[in-house]
Amino acid sequence: MSPVILINPFEVPSDEGEDFIAVWREAAEYLRRQEGFVSTRMHRSLDPSASFRFVNIAVWESVEDFRRAIGKPEFRKLGGGIPFPNHPALYEVIAEIP
Amino acid sequence: MSPVILINPFEVPSDEGEDFIAVWREAAEYLRRQEGFVSTRMHRSLDPSASFRFVNIAVWESVEDFRRAIGKPEFRKLGGGIPFPNHPALYEVIAEIP
Repeated sequence: MSPVILINPFEVPSDEGEDFIAVWREAAEYLRRQEGFVSTRMHRSLDPSASFRFVNIAVWESVEDFRRAIGKPEFRKLGGGIPFPNHPALYEVIAEIP
Repeated sequence: MSPVILINPFEVPSDEGEDFIAVWREAAEYLRRQEGFVSTRMHRSLDPSASFRFVNIAVWESVEDFRRAIGKPEFRKLGGGIPFPNHPALYEVIAEIP
């Protein structure tokens, strides 16, 4: 099993960032304790009017580990606390420079 | 000046990936020769029906370096060859675990 990358762009209005980060941190603290979690980084756009104000990029050891972690009722409760449209998907790196 | 991260999600139909990567590689080969370029990675979704089939994540030494590189006529010609909707924006990391 190869590591996989979760990329999740969030559509968050520029004046609502503070609440969003607090909710995300709570979910991230749960996920870091799950088997297969490697790392996670939250990115904020320099331009407040970007299509995706926040983008989360996380690394997991396998698809199976990620699915197990987000499938637990504890996470579904936490993730349900994020009221903004988002587009999570799992990715692999197919080209890299240098 | 701090490093900045370009995140660009592309809306590419699942049957058009091959052409897309060839055009992207040409643009990436131009960008790697520009001042301030650090690295770039192209990601492909494991699920072909993801909202964003491809996501490019690149690191630049500064906003100014990135803007200078993409402002040159040579790049505009290359970038203009990508016929899919995309959402490029510059980001900073605001939270990281571990």
